[in-house]
Amino acid sequence: MIRKEDIQKFTQLFSCDRIMILMHCRPDGDTLGTGFALKRLLELNGKRVTAVCNDEVPKKLDFFTEGKKNLDPDFEPETIVTVDTATPELLGKKYEAYANRVWLAVDHHATNSLYAENTILYPDKSSAGELLSDLIYESGIIYDSVVASCLYGAISFDTGCFRFSNVKPETHLAAARLLSFDFDAAEMNRRMFDLAPLGQLKVENELLQNAELFCGGKAVIVTLTLDMVEKSGAAESDFEGLAAIARRIEGTYVSATLRENSDNSVRVSLRSECNIDVSVIASEFGGGGHVRASGCTINKPVDEVKELIMNSVERAFEKSEYQL
Amino acid sequence: MIRKEDIQKFTQLFSCDRIMILMHCRPDGDTLGTGFALKRLLELNGKRVTAVCNDEVPKKLDFFTEGKKNLDPDFEPETIVTVDTATPELLGKKYEAYANRVWLAVDHHATNSLYAENTILYPDKSSAGELLSDLIYESGIIYDSVVASCLYGAISFDTGCFRFSNVKPETHLAAARLLSFDFDAAEMNRRMFDLAPLGQLKVENELLQNAELFCGGKAVIVTLTLDMVEKSGAAESDFEGLAAIARRIEGTYVSATLRENSDNSVRVSLRSECNIDVSVIASEFGGGGHVRASGCTINKPVDEVKELIMNSVERAFEKSEYQL
Repeated sequence: MIRKEDIQKFTQLFSCDRIMILMHCRPDGDTLGTGFALKRLLELNGKRVTAVCNDEVPKKLDFFTEGKKNLDPDFEPETIVTVDTATPELLGKKYEAYANRVWLAVDHHATNSLYAENTILYPDKSSAGELLSDLIYESGIIYDSVVASCLYGAISFDTGCFRFSNVKPETHLAAARLLSFDFDAAEMNRRMFDLAPLGQLKVENELLQNAELFCGGKAVIVTLTLDMVEKSGAAESDFEGLAAIARRIEGTYVSATLRENSDNSVRVSLRSECNIDVSVIASEFGGGGHVRASGCTINKPVDEVKELIMNSVERAFEKSEYQL
Repeated sequence: MIRKEDIQKFTQLFSCDRIMILMHCRPDGDTLGTGFALKRLLELNGKRVTAVCNDEVPKKLDFFTEGKKNLDPDFEPETIVTVDTATPELLGKKYEAYANRVWLAVDHHATNSLYAENTILYPDKSSAGELLSDLIYESGIIYDSVVASCLYGAISFDTGCFRFSNVKPETHLAAARLLSFDFDAAEMNRRMFDLAPLGQLKVENELLQNAELFCGGKAVIVTLTLDMVEKSGAAESDFEGLAAIARRIEGTYVSATLRENSDNSVRVSLRSECNIDVSVIASEFGGGGHVRASGCTINKPVDEVKELIMNSVERAFEKSEYQL
């Protein structure tokens, strides 16, 4: 349920004009889908709208923007809205300075710093897309299949196609409403979740080839070296989901994904599927994060980093009675 | 919407006893989830029920059966129900003979041969799970979180976690109802779609290493040899979804997955994402199937099969103006 005052704030937007929609940097499916749904909705209502982002749109998500890569402003705005953006820094260098001029922020991150004049914030929503879908529905605003497809894509992206624990009954209700419009949801899911350049698939695969089980098979460590990246011909942005790969290995409760950087440091991503707190391990090396997902960067050769992390994970297993 | 006479048939089941639920052979998540949801529902209503299947339950799906592998009958039944089973042959050798005694079939396959005394058949439903969920809901029968979790799992399995084109608004409505019960849907999805033994993951990924693009990158061929299977230590059933892997390669419209059999024949799976009809290619070699998914078995060494298939695909591209 959306609060009454939020419906009011949202419908007030339809009396504004020359609206700039700011999306967060390194754009994902949720910020793009929500941003372009809102753009279309406002345009259907006769508004002039420009949708803007600090960084390029990744190729696999460019169906949201009809192939457009660079989202630069078309005009100087009167009204500024952000979507899915918790803090001013997330607007990126080009747009950070706009933060104190934001009239409305539509967001689902509990960490939102309330930088905007008005903030519609629902941390229990799976995605900004689900929130905007509910706002539109409860406001009784008419929309079309373009709005519906963008919102569906946003929700699907942030929920891993309805598979994560952020999915609630209301998430499926939103999807049911949106799917009653005519668009190809299956093709959208295929682009977001299945398709990948052969180079990237091969690198993911090489990771598994060098996967090393330890702690009696309960933990796994995988390594992506500069050499592997170079040989693959894949782009930097192709490796965003790397930490998900080691997690797939059956029987493991903790995974470490090592990635060699060009400055000879190593980025370590740690994931836990049990009660072992990987943020403790990350903090040993100056990093941090959450109980089940954390990371750190270590300035040592990759072989040394591997040994350090393996020892630390082993100690964590020795200390705790691990359980799922 | 469920037809009134089907609600009547379904509720009539609750005046029967000593009920046997038959699932199809090589059981998948839909038949298991639907079968065990129905078992639990009938037991909640004081019935004696036995759920039966010709083949072992795959490890990744044994959460439906609480770890039970073999589903043999507990008693001689009075009433027999099948779920998700289109033809008597699909009951498997042990239970094929029961087909002419089936009182009720609950199914969503258009190809159902109507072998049962009563058939509740809705080919527009994504899954038998969605159908049973609608039957229960529209009959107004009370159920619990075990029934809900099994039905959710059945729907999720047959829709690839809501990503395929068989998903309709009603599918999400069913999921919304089911998720209002307390169970761990995310963990269920992780087991069905993410987790895999390292051996299997390595094989899937070896496939990509030998992936060969042809037809100017529009087609791809991958090969699984006996040697690769043996080295992996993976089980036969681990390779069910193999044809999905080659489909992931961006830019390709047709994929061929070759699998060497122990009798020196080669099983070929063909997939098309465009207007090229791969059943024509399969039928050249005595196989068949659908426009977008077909297969054949060729009694030749794997290298020869590879050349035959590549030539045939190339001719198909030459003949047609392919389009998505």
